[in-house]
Amino acid sequence: MRVAVIGVGLTKFGEHWDKSFTDLFVEAGVRAIEDAGIDGKDIEAMFIGNMSGGRFIDQEHISCLIADRAGLSPIPSTRVEAACASGGLALRQGVMSILSGFHDVVVVGGVEKMTDIATERTTQILATASDQEWEAFLGVTFPSLYAMIARRHMHEFGTTREQLALVSVKNHRNAMKNPYAQFHREITVEDVLNSPLVADPLRLLDCSPISDGAACLILASEDKAKEFTDSPVWIIGSGQASSTIALHDRKNIVVQEATIHASREAYKRAKKEPKDIEVAEVHDAFTIGEILAIEALGFFKIGEGGRATEEGLTEIGGKVAVNPSGGLKAKGHPVGATGVAQAVEIVLQLRGEAHGRNTNADVGLTHNVGGSGGTSVVHIFEKG
Amino acid sequence: MRVAVIGVGLTKFGEHWDKSFTDLFVEAGVRAIEDAGIDGKDIEAMFIGNMSGGRFIDQEHISCLIADRAGLSPIPSTRVEAACASGGLALRQGVMSILSGFHDVVVVGGVEKMTDIATERTTQILATASDQEWEAFLGVTFPSLYAMIARRHMHEFGTTREQLALVSVKNHRNAMKNPYAQFHREITVEDVLNSPLVADPLRLLDCSPISDGAACLILASEDKAKEFTDSPVWIIGSGQASSTIALHDRKNIVVQEATIHASREAYKRAKKEPKDIEVAEVHDAFTIGEILAIEALGFFKIGEGGRATEEGLTEIGGKVAVNPSGGLKAKGHPVGATGVAQAVEIVLQLRGEAHGRNTNADVGLTHNVGGSGGTSVVHIFEKG
Repeated sequence: MRVAVIGVGLTKFGEHWDKSFTDLFVEAGVRAIEDAGIDGKDIEAMFIGNMSGGRFIDQEHISCLIADRAGLSPIPSTRVEAACASGGLALRQGVMSILSGFHDVVVVGGVEKMTDIATERTTQILATASDQEWEAFLGVTFPSLYAMIARRHMHEFGTTREQLALVSVKNHRNAMKNPYAQFHREITVEDVLNSPLVADPLRLLDCSPISDGAACLILASEDKAKEFTDSPVWIIGSGQASSTIALHDRKNIVVQEATIHASREAYKRAKKEPKDIEVAEVHDAFTIGEILAIEALGFFKIGEGGRATEEGLTEIGGKVAVNPSGGLKAKGHPVGATGVAQAVEIVLQLRGEAHGRNTNADVGLTHNVGGSGGTSVVHIFEKG
Repeated sequence: MRVAVIGVGLTKFGEHWDKSFTDLFVEAGVRAIEDAGIDGKDIEAMFIGNMSGGRFIDQEHISCLIADRAGLSPIPSTRVEAACASGGLALRQGVMSILSGFHDVVVVGGVEKMTDIATERTTQILATASDQEWEAFLGVTFPSLYAMIARRHMHEFGTTREQLALVSVKNHRNAMKNPYAQFHREITVEDVLNSPLVADPLRLLDCSPISDGAACLILASEDKAKEFTDSPVWIIGSGQASSTIALHDRKNIVVQEATIHASREAYKRAKKEPKDIEVAEVHDAFTIGEILAIEALGFFKIGEGGRATEEGLTEIGGKVAVNPSGGLKAKGHPVGATGVAQAVEIVLQLRGEAHGRNTNADVGLTHNVGGSGGTSVVHIFEKG
């Protein structure tokens, strides 16, 4: 399979008090269209990842709203949702729509406006990604779910508190070179260990922030891409899988089964192996999340993610550069936008346009998770 | 294009106080699997239409929840949303996933649980399908939006109050023969005209009810379908389009532009014309909605839908049988399930299994709308 990415666009991630949901999307969209050098009339369809417009901004039917505000009606516009994996799933729908022969040029977008409401409501809304009947209703929140996973990972494999902190330290350092990142502040292991406890063992600096933001990609079929560029980045693999929504139903909470299945599908379609991946954007909503990801994706053996991080193997210049953008932790995590923003970073990396944080990679991967691992979606990209 | 429907399943639509969201989905899903004569392990992916799990039942990420509760993890499971057109869009994603070569057998489902909360909240939640900033925030609800359309249609074309009522009378009569319908009660024009005023000129019996329910389809690729059946129903056309989300932004509120665009795409893919359609399930969330639909789909000229209804041309046995299931008005309207349930009815019609309401049709159509016409999706089916 081969689908071209011919344009990318992002907003800065952060607290955008002066911009609306649609302002954000249109800003990212216009940048992607300009980057692709296409005209609005070339666009045949839109696929948009969004977790909870219905609760964050009292607006469902955001696919229609966005096509309208972007001046793109009457093209078909479709919202896709799987909690924090919404953006990755929108990308997959866009890929399938092109491979099906339905469309030649489509927009894949992701957007979330999370700061228009009080923070305690935000936490409740994010908890709707867990099992309402067996988790959220009883007061479980995402930091507590990931805290249980972290504790078990430490117990089972000897992963240390410092190794978790090093994920955050690395990602904050990478974000220093990313103008679109929410945080531009280097931190130390001590900063992480001294930050307020959220859910033992996870502290504030183990957690990704609440963010506003949008991201856009322009995809094109192989034939159509030639009209616009000589050097597209190719999407060569896509995989998606599900697991139990509730953590307690999993056979093993420290192994992200959905990611194993999703990445197997993606590697197979791409005819690549884990060792071929030079750069990856993975779902570090919490520091333990990055450890789970680099293990389940096959970069390191199960249980060895913490040590690999400590040894610097996930740094830019290491065995595989993980989250050169700063990741969800430091770039920010506007939930519906995240999966698309990961793809934007990989495209910039493969083009050599990730100024100051370039990895000189030819093959990259994105890994986007919904809930505590209930949905996972993986895409593999190759330089044209 | 050709994708097979090899199985269908429905729950009864209505107020299911004793069943949960997942109970409903699993009930419809098991019926579809049994109808197809397949095994759960044959299913490769799910696409689920749902408007607002986030607000109706405090649960986003319902794609994962359903795959889990149905025992189908780790298959990929994707929720699609475009308000009341969510089900129709899920069907389109399922079709594209097969035509893309990604999958051979997929479940397309739709589900909504609307009665677990107070009715005034339900009305607010449904209003999130309109433009939050320019409509819902100011107190506009869906009956009032459709009332404005109805008033304008009456003014411009001489459509009468009685003609609107006749849509409801016909659909209630059709529903008498549908065991899955929410209402089994014949009504008269006088009943409609004497029912409580909701938003002038629309009265209670012009409005579809609040419903719980689920619907499922099993789709298969052309090659794979042969393994399971000698006589599938084929999906031969699919079209989708958008319009402005807010009513006041439309050039002409009595012409459903998105439906014109969506049906043109579907007719073109199917190589059919409006005159070829013998049976159609259309989006009669309000009686005026059916009039708009039969005009925009090309069954009758713009402005002539009311008269056509009065002349009996949309009855079973008329020029084109419209809403033989009872439609949204009498079968019920669990919003995310509706687009899929429409397809279930057309499959039963083409198989000759719509007992007591059979139309002996070879070619049928479904028409599913989001908001006041901001999203429209049309599918065309042919007997195998």
